[in-house]
This record gives sequence, C-alpha cells and structure tokens, in this order.
Amino acid sequence: MASNGFGTLFRIVTWGESHGPAIGVVIDGCPAGLKLSAEDLMHDLARRAPGQAQTSPRKESDLPHILSGVFEGTTTGAPISIIFYNQDVDSSKYTSLKNVLRPGHASYTYLEKYGIFDYRGGGRASGRETACRVAAGAVARKLLSHYDIACQAHLLEEEEIRKRIADNPSDSFGGVIEFSATGLPAGLGDPIYEKLEAKLAAALLSIPATKGFELGAGFQAAAMTGSLHNDTFTLENQQVVTTTNHAGGALGGISTGMPLVGRVAFKPTSSIPRTQTTLTTSKKAITYELPAGSRHDPCIALRAAPVVEAMVLLVLADTILMNRLSKLN
Amino acid sequence: MASNGFGTLFRIVTWGESHGPAIGVVIDGCPAGLKLSAEDLMHDLARRAPGQAQTSPRKESDLPHILSGVFEGTTTGAPISIIFYNQDVDSSKYTSLKNVLRPGHASYTYLEKYGIFDYRGGGRASGRETACRVAAGAVARKLLSHYDIACQAHLLEEEEIRKRIADNPSDSFGGVIEFSATGLPAGLGDPIYEKLEAKLAAALLSIPATKGFELGAGFQAAAMTGSLHNDTFTLENQQVVTTTNHAGGALGGISTGMPLVGRVAFKPTSSIPRTQTTLTTSKKAITYELPAGSRHDPCIALRAAPVVEAMVLLVLADTILMNRLSKLN
Amino acid sequence: MASNGFGTLFRIVTWGESHGPAIGVVIDGCPAGLKLSAEDLMHDLARRAPGQAQTSPRKESDLPHILSGVFEGTTTGAPISIIFYNQDVDSSKYTSLKNVLRPGHASYTYLEKYGIFDYRGGGRASGRETACRVAAGAVARKLLSHYDIACQAHLLEEEEIRKRIADNPSDSFGGVIEFSATGLPAGLGDPIYEKLEAKLAAALLSIPATKGFELGAGFQAAAMTGSLHNDTFTLENQQVVTTTNHAGGALGGISTGMPLVGRVAFKPTSSIPRTQTTLTTSKKAITYELPAGSRHDPCIALRAAPVVEAMVLLVLADTILMNRLSKLN
Amino acid sequence: MASNGFGTLFRIVTWGESHGPAIGVVIDGCPAGLKLSAEDLMHDLARRAPGQAQTSPRKESDLPHILSGVFEGTTTGAPISIIFYNQDVDSSKYTSLKNVLRPGHASYTYLEKYGIFDYRGGGRASGRETACRVAAGAVARKLLSHYDIACQAHLLEEEEIRKRIADNPSDSFGGVIEFSATGLPAGLGDPIYEKLEAKLAAALLSIPATKGFELGAGFQAAAMTGSLHNDTFTLENQQVVTTTNHAGGALGGISTGMPLVGRVAFKPTSSIPRTQTTLTTSKKAITYELPAGSRHDPCIALRAAPVVEAMVLLVLADTILMNRLSKLN
Repeated sequence: MASNGFGTLFRIVTWGESHGPAIGVVIDGCPAGLKLSAEDLMHDLARRAPGQAQTSPRKESDLPHILSGVFEGTTTGAPISIIFYNQDVDSSKYTSLKNVLRPGHASYTYLEKYGIFDYRGGGRASGRETACRVAAGAVARKLLSHYDIACQAHLLEEEEIRKRIADNPSDSFGGVIEFSATGLPAGLGDPIYEKLEAKLAAALLSIPATKGFELGAGFQAAAMTGSLHNDTFTLENQQVVTTTNHAGGALGGISTGMPLVGRVAFKPTSSIPRTQTTLTTSKKAITYELPAGSRHDPCIALRAAPVVEAMVLLVLADTILMNRLSKLN
Repeated sequence: MASNGFGTLFRIVTWGESHGPAIGVVIDGCPAGLKLSAEDLMHDLARRAPGQAQTSPRKESDLPHILSGVFEGTTTGAPISIIFYNQDVDSSKYTSLKNVLRPGHASYTYLEKYGIFDYRGGGRASGRETACRVAAGAVARKLLSHYDIACQAHLLEEEEIRKRIADNPSDSFGGVIEFSATGLPAGLGDPIYEKLEAKLAAALLSIPATKGFELGAGFQAAAMTGSLHNDTFTLENQQVVTTTNHAGGALGGISTGMPLVGRVAFKPTSSIPRTQTTLTTSKKAITYELPAGSRHDPCIALRAAPVVEAMVLLVLADTILMNRLSKLN
Repeated sequence: MASNGFGTLFRIVTWGESHGPAIGVVIDGCPAGLKLSAEDLMHDLARRAPGQAQTSPRKESDLPHILSGVFEGTTTGAPISIIFYNQDVDSSKYTSLKNVLRPGHASYTYLEKYGIFDYRGGGRASGRETACRVAAGAVARKLLSHYDIACQAHLLEEEEIRKRIADNPSDSFGGVIEFSATGLPAGLGDPIYEKLEAKLAAALLSIPATKGFELGAGFQAAAMTGSLHNDTFTLENQQVVTTTNHAGGALGGISTGMPLVGRVAFKPTSSIPRTQTTLTTSKKAITYELPAGSRHDPCIALRAAPVVEAMVLLVLADTILMNRLSKLN
Repeated sequence: MASNGFGTLFRIVTWGESHGPAIGVVIDGCPAGLKLSAEDLMHDLARRAPGQAQTSPRKESDLPHILSGVFEGTTTGAPISIIFYNQDVDSSKYTSLKNVLRPGHASYTYLEKYGIFDYRGGGRASGRETACRVAAGAVARKLLSHYDIACQAHLLEEEEIRKRIADNPSDSFGGVIEFSATGLPAGLGDPIYEKLEAKLAAALLSIPATKGFELGAGFQAAAMTGSLHNDTFTLENQQVVTTTNHAGGALGGISTGMPLVGRVAFKPTSSIPRTQTTLTTSKKAITYELPAGSRHDPCIALRAAPVVEAMVLLVLADTILMNRLSKLN
C-alpha cells in the first residue's frame, strides 16, 4: 500500500534509503505562479543539518536539486521533483548489525512486515528521510507566505537538555517541541474527519521518534473546568478574537483566527553508546554495541524543530488550498 | 472538499445533522463473508447512549438500521449503509442561540468557513455524529474478531471525575481515556506517513472535544533517557516480546506484537449551565445562557470510551486489510 | 476495497441493492451556498424512469428524499444524503435464477470475486443503482448552472432502434449515446493522469452495459491525417475558438473552450425473452428462460441518456472545483 | 491538484519536463520480495524508443536508473524511484514557437489553465513522459508474471499505415492499437465505479493523443442484438469459459477469466511538416512551420504499443492487489 505520500491537494511523495544513491521528494499540486529556487530551501535544510550554526548546507548530501516543475524561476503547476544525492558511504560497519533486533529501532517491525530490510544506516527508516520533508515544507512555507501565514517551532527546555547531555554522554534524551502558526484566517480547516487538529496530529506523529501530540491546553485541558477552559470571544480592532487561547487556534477542526499552538513529544534517541541486550533475527539472545565510529545523536529533538515546522506547513498548505472549495462563490 | 470520510481500504463516510430527519454511515470496503446483523451493533451503541446501565439502545434514535450490503446475514462486499432516524425534536429552543458565537463551540468557525450553519442542536458538529462512528466501529470489531484482535478503552480517574461533577454541578469537566488493543501480530501498520501512531492520532483527534494523543510512554518519554525508554527484546514462549512496553506497541509505525496502548485527552464540555459573555454573529457583546431544558452533559469523556474504541477499531480494520498487500507471497 | 465512490472534490458514494429496503447516495464536497431541494432532482429522475413522457417520478421508489446537508433550502457544505426507498417486491420469482450463470450478467463474476451474490433483481449490479447517479448528477447540474455550464445527451438513431425493437420483440438492442457539454471555459481539466477525457472515459465506462467511449472524432480520428484533424485556432468575437472541433473540446486533457462532445456505446440488454443455454453455479449445463412476468427492457440505451449526462456532470463538477486550485492567485 | 499520480494500491507518480535535467517515476505500493533490476525495464523501453529494431535503449536519455526500493536485487516494499537523465538539448530552436498556439497541441490549454507553460520540447506535455509509464509498467509486468498474467498490444493495419506514411511524407497519421491480457482469473476487478473497463478506459485515455477506447465488441456491440452478443457460458477442461468473447473479458466490471481484449484510438500526430495557420498567444493570426531540424514522428501510434501495454499492466497490478481484499478469508 502506498504509504510514502502525504497530503491531499498539496501532495508529496518521498523516496530513498539512507545508503542508496539518493533520496528525494515529488510535490504534486503546488499552484502555478510561485517564485521558487533551490535557494529557498537552503535555510530550513541548514537548520536540520548537524551543527546548526550555519545558514546553508555544508555537505553535498544536504544540497537540494530541483529537477522539474519550475520554469524561468516560477512554478508551472507540474510536479516539483527535488533530489539529494547521498554521499558514498562505507556501509560495511553496519554489517555487524545486520541480524540484530535493535531496541527502539524499526528493524524488527520492518522485517516482520516485509520479510526484508535494508539495514544500512536505517534504510528507509532513517532520519535522513526528513530532509525531504523539510525541503517540501520550505516550498509550502513559500506558498503560505503569500497568505501571510508563518510557522515556527522550538525545543522546550533546550538549555536543560543540553546540560543533561553534557552530564551523561553515554545515554540519550527526549524532548518536547512547541510549534505555533500565525496569520491563519478564521474558517481554515475541515470538519469531522479532516479536522485541522487531526491532520496536524497525523502529520506530526509521522515524524520518526514522536510519541505524543497536543493542541492548545492539550492534556492539561482534561484537568480544567469548562468555565476556565472556554475561550471568551471578544473584539480587538474590530476583529473577533478570544481572550485566552486554550483551544490552540481551532474549534471543531476549523481555525479560529487565533495562533495555532501545539506540542510534540519526542522519545530519546534509540541508538545509545552502551552495551544493550537483545535478540538476533534468529531469536538468539546477544549483547551488542554501536559500531565504532558511529555518529551519536544524543537528542533527536535538538534538530527536529525544522521537521516539525515542515509538517505543520505541509498541513497548512493543503488546508489553504482546500479552503478555496468550501463556498459556492 | 470531501471531509466526511475516514479510512482507506475499510472506508466510512458519515452524514446527517442533529435535528435533520436522520444520520447515517456508509462502509465501503468491508470484505464479503462476515456474519453481521444490527444486533452486533447494539452493545457498543448502548454504551455510548446517555445512561450506560443498559445493554441495548432504549430510544428509537439510537437504533441502527442496516439498509444494504448484507444478504442472508452475511456481508456481500457491497457497501453497508446504516441509518439512525432522528426523533422529532422541537428545535425552537435553539433559536435564541442562532446568532450567538458560543464559546468552545464550532458555530463561529463553521460560519466563517461556510457562511451558513445549521445551528439546531449543533447540526453537523453535534456529538450525535459519533453514533455513526460507533456503529461502523462495531462492524470493524466483528471483522477484527476473526483475527483475534480486540480493543477496549476506559476513562482514567473516573471516580474522581464523578466526585468533581457532584461537587460542582454548574460547571463541566474533561478527562483522559486510555485504550489498548491486543492480539495484533508484529508487522502491522505502514511506515513513513501512514504510521500506525499517525493514523491513530488522526482518528482520535477527529473525535469532538479531543485535544491530545499519546502512544505508550507518550509525553513522559520526552523526559526519559534512552537506556530506560528502550524496550528490550526477549523471548517468551518462543515469541519475540519486549520486557517493557514504553513504545506502546509500535516501532517505526509498525506493530511490535505488544499491546497497542495510548491515551486521548478530552476537554471539558463547552456547554455549561452558567451565564457566559460572548459576541453575536454581528459582533455585539452579549451574555447568554443555555436554553431552559437543555440537557447538560457535564463530562463528555464519561461516554466517550466506545467512540475511542470505534476509532481505534476502524484504524485497525484498515490496517489489517493493508497488511495483505505488503509481500509478494 | 472501496469501489462505490466516484470523484475527488465533488465526491459521491452510492449504496443499496435492488431488492433491499432502500438505495442511496451521499455527496461529500458540494460547496455551501447552493439552493437545493428534492424538486431539483425530479426532472432528471423522471427522464430515467420507465415511460419517459412524464416530468416527475410516478413511483415512490423513484422519489428522492434529501436527508442532510441542506438547511433552509441551501447547502451547508455538509454531506448531502439522498435516499430512495425500494417498493416491497416479491423476490421469489428470482429464486429460479439463483443458481444460474446468466449470460451477459454479473452474477458469475460477482460470485467469483466475493463468494456470495444477492441475486434478487440483480442486487448491487442492478440498473437501479443509476438512480443514485442521476440524483447526484442533478446536484452537479445545479452547481454547474452557476458557471453557465450545461450538458445534454441523446441516443443516436433512436427512431431506427425503436423500429428494430418493434420488428423483433424477442431480442434486445444496443445503441450509442452522444453527449455534449457547453459553456466550459478554456483551461478546465488536468494534465497527465487526470485528463478530462480520461475522467470522462472512466465515468462513462462505469455505467452498466457500456463498451466504448470516444471524444470528438474518436475512432474516426485514427483514419484521418493530421492536416485534416488539427483544429485551426482563430478568433470569433475576440475569443479564441477552433474552426473545427475534431478534438471534441479538449487538448492534452484540458478544455479548449469548444463544446465537449463524445459518444458512449451500450451493448444490447443481457436479459432477453428467449431460451438460452448456460451453466449453473455447480457447472451443470442448463437451458433457462426469464421468469414469467419479468419486465423486459429491450434497449437499455433508450433510458440511459440522463445517466450519461449525470456522469459527465459529476466529472465537470469535480473539475470546476479543481480549477480553483491551479494558480497562485 | 495532484494529477500526476496513477493507481491506488500499486501507485505511481511521474515528474519532469522534456528539456529539464531529468524525468522520473516513483512507484509506491509494490510488494516486497520481487526480484528487480534496471535490466528488467530495458526491453519495454527499447520498444518505445525511436527505431524499434534494438532490444536495449541506445541513448543515455532512455536508460533507467533505479534509485531506491531495491535491496540486494529484491524489492523491499519501499518506494521505487526510477530516473532518466535528459540529454543536453539546444532548446533555442523552440523559441520561435514560444508564442504560437500550435494546433492540436496542449500549449493553449496549459496556458489557459496555469498562466505559464514550459514550451521547450512540449515541457510536461511531451511524449517523453511516457518513458516513465513504460518503466513502471515493466515493474508491473514483473509482478504480474508471478500470477501468470501477460499483456501484449499491437498496431492494427500497421503495414497499410507505413505505406500511407511513405506515400505522403508531409502529413501525419493515426492508428488503432489492440491490446489483450491473458491469464486473468475470473473475479478480478471491482464493481460500480472501479470497474475493470472504467479503470482501463481512464488509463488508456490518459495517454497523449488518444481519442477513444473500447472493450470486446465495443462500438460494434451497439449494433448487435442481445441474442448474438451474449457470450454463452460453457465448460472447457472443467473450467467455466464462454464460447465467444464479445464482452472482452469483463462482466459488470469484473473479469470473466476470458482474455481481456480492447482497442485504443490514436489521433494523427499534431506536429506536421507543413505550413499551418493559427494564432499567437496575443491573439494575432500567423502562419508557422516546425523549426528546421525538428524530428518528425509521422505516426505516434507506431511506437505506442508498449505505452498501451504499460497502462494496462499498471491497472492489472493495482487490481491483482485489490483482489486480496474482497473476502474475509
């Protein structure tokens, strides 16, 4: 079943494995007339790359190439294909992991589902796939800028997390990323099964290592009373607003015009620089360690903010197009 | 845009307003050969109806009628249409609310989106729509029983919530519902954008009044270390299991074979038996109260467990069918 | 798999069997703000009913009931559910056909696919399902009238066919229906896989008993030279038009602004008032006849024009909505 | 709107323009476990390339590169990305056509739809896109070979057409391609809106330059009587077969087990080596000729058989997977 596509009107499909020749994304449904170049994707891609101090990707493998859908600097309505060539990598160090059911990893579940798994660097389940999301999200961001809609995300308690990493270098850590989107008009989104919050939830829980999603007051709302939680409608500069925003910007699946605010929980990185006990694919107990020289990413959430933004932006691009369809005139 | 459908292979579409002649659901994609009668839907529908002590619906408006797709007690592969006739209701008491932007309700956002809103009893945004979900979920439950997959949900801290309601009858309350599904084989679900957790998140956040979703350790996972969070693979009766289940039953979007466990946060009911301040549709400030004689549901979450189960079951029915597609043989 | 739905943005799903309690259609995606009543469906339904001299349906079973999606005479953006209650019919006469593989009918193929078949009156494969198409098509027609788009269809050589029927009452006959849609602006439709002609072809070949489709010059085009077939662009009242319309109104899948013209071939009715040789479901050779008193429809194509129109209208409604999405501004 | 995708379970999306850096296709939904290499695509691609005498593509631009989804020679269930790099081409000769509404071409309709058109070599509307279809079709062929399903197509009256080309080198010609697929079991396909004939019709009418489709007796069926057209069921080697195959292999949208046989009409090539009269994009009348040195393809249909096969194979791959879903057991 086709599970590598996301979105309805502004639709992407991503492809590629960590240690194959390339990865990429095809965007089908971007309106014609949008100014677009590879430059527009650089900033978000740089934020996702390891070492966030730079503003453009340093490595060839992080450089996007737009192969179609843009003519003389403008989108044509044809699909936009973006490719990243992988660097030649020595995959041999992964051979020792070939038959290991790595705790927290998808190797076991992929094998059960497909009977085969490209284990090198995580294959299709690698975090490298998120580069495609970020590239597509940057296109969505460009589209949404025409509607004055913006989105930003950041890791909560980042300083504390960095401190924990420094204190405990042989383990890994999780985190919660908060996003907010501003500039949305009221009336954006769909009712019943395509609620804004439902689409955001699916988008964000499709990011590797995520375990939870909440909008507005979220899980805290469960402990509040209605009289406290209900956001009161009032006027501000002749605009309908609410005095509080416990709803997080949506009622009944449709935007209120207040900022869309939510949070995503990331689990700690599954790969840890420690000896772990597990099974082999032939069900033998073993202990194993990461191959020497493996890069250790102690907290995925530290680099995940642009991925969160990308998924929110993809949902909003889809939604802003859908909103052209709701009324007769 | 078509937003009233849910699912891919086991697909439903629901229709109907609270105060129209009827509501209903059409299931397209249920395999042929399943024994099915209206009786099979009664138990879940009764649990959803107000006053959960009974085991079959008491009111005509809660009685499902199967209009198609079943021949001599067996599904034929044709669409299954289920209808609930609404009781004649006096909608006149809602007239006073016609021009009120009710806090926490969808009236404002629907009006902004569509320019028109059937305000009587909440119209399409009414909780009554969830009867259709529960009916369809009961069909999914029957299908899944052939695979020995079951699902149950319950409200956490129910006793405490009932106490709060008794103590404060002029307010409303939220709650968290926990679900678990058992009997899933490992390898169920899809990677990347159709992850089991992403589909569950969308399914559950499409339920009215939900504000958050988490799987396994969920938001707690963000505060754990990898060495603690990673579930260790081991053997039990020659089966691969994990010693803990922080993942909540899925890795990389695909089931591990451990129970699928998660939670959904419900906000407090938006309608409260109190005077509230708000705006009219013509942006005038007013205070308003619920019409005399309105039924007050102090905590939606008290009746939401069968709806949560229904949505999980619908996801799993879809997923179990998808799993027939993953391998060549 | 969900095969009872049609359309993407203006989407329908139909349900129901010939001898069940009812049949119906749910339209999901009709914009809000369209004036609509059951009256609007009557004319097209009457044209489809046996005995086309009347302008409104004579039988209860041909009367549409709109159950949702319309409030105070206007569509709300919510799904529009339309139901037709079947008349109580004595199905017992079909019992003799229960185990017969009727030539030209779907009984054999449904049995092979599903292992079960509601044989009474053709069950789901009955022509009665087309009432749902016509009802939905009438809603599409109303929507398209706001864009000054109209569609009409008629049977070619109708007089000759009626003569053949009179001359040979113990056989059945086919026919070709020609449709044309006017008022389409240039630029309507989508390229590559969602070409206007591809969508029309699928729509029309989904009608029971259809065997062929062509647009414009169609199969004749295969015998023409390019210099003859190419339609020359010219100006007429400052509008771009073509001097001929061999293309039938579309180039590269997108409308030219010229009338959309095409044809659909219908095979002769499969049920004929003659003794036929065939097999039983247990593979025994038999001869069989239609049950006494069966209504004989000697040429399905005689009543199919409104069904052809309905399918073209559904495609155009979808396409006119899609066209809101193609450009940035 | 996303119009560059085709199929539901075995789903492709194609991208790329004739004079951009590359074109490609992503297949999402191919089951894991299929042996596959670029070699498998060569034969069909060679048949599509100009000059059909060879068995492998001669030009770099016809060489497929598989970038993902295959591990150690076997599909993994991940998306299969196939790319063809375009040769550096001098696009300057197309500049003279930039502002010409070329008769029979999509330049006018694309401009009306999108407001922008990559005119170089036809851009997205180029026949080059069909290389992607053929590559994907070759993967489908490999999958179907495991079910002993095969498909072949050929141009009818090819000799006569070649003679006409030789006799009239300054014009272009159409043709009719007949396809047949063998090895299908009875029961394949879906009823109502996803009928085998409807899906084939859409698939084949999505090929550039097609104007008509028919299955079995097709348009001839319209002139036949039922007693002649009905295919009689009988036994052959204990198998249910029909004595004739006017139906062309499907009844009610579902396969009968007889060969699937149909035809597709292609119009004559729109580009002709003659002076033609038309308009410019600014609505001025002009005469124009093809740029000197343009390759003239006097009959598209001569090379279209592998494209027809590809589209039929893609439909059948989708259908064979769907058929895993129809029954409970």
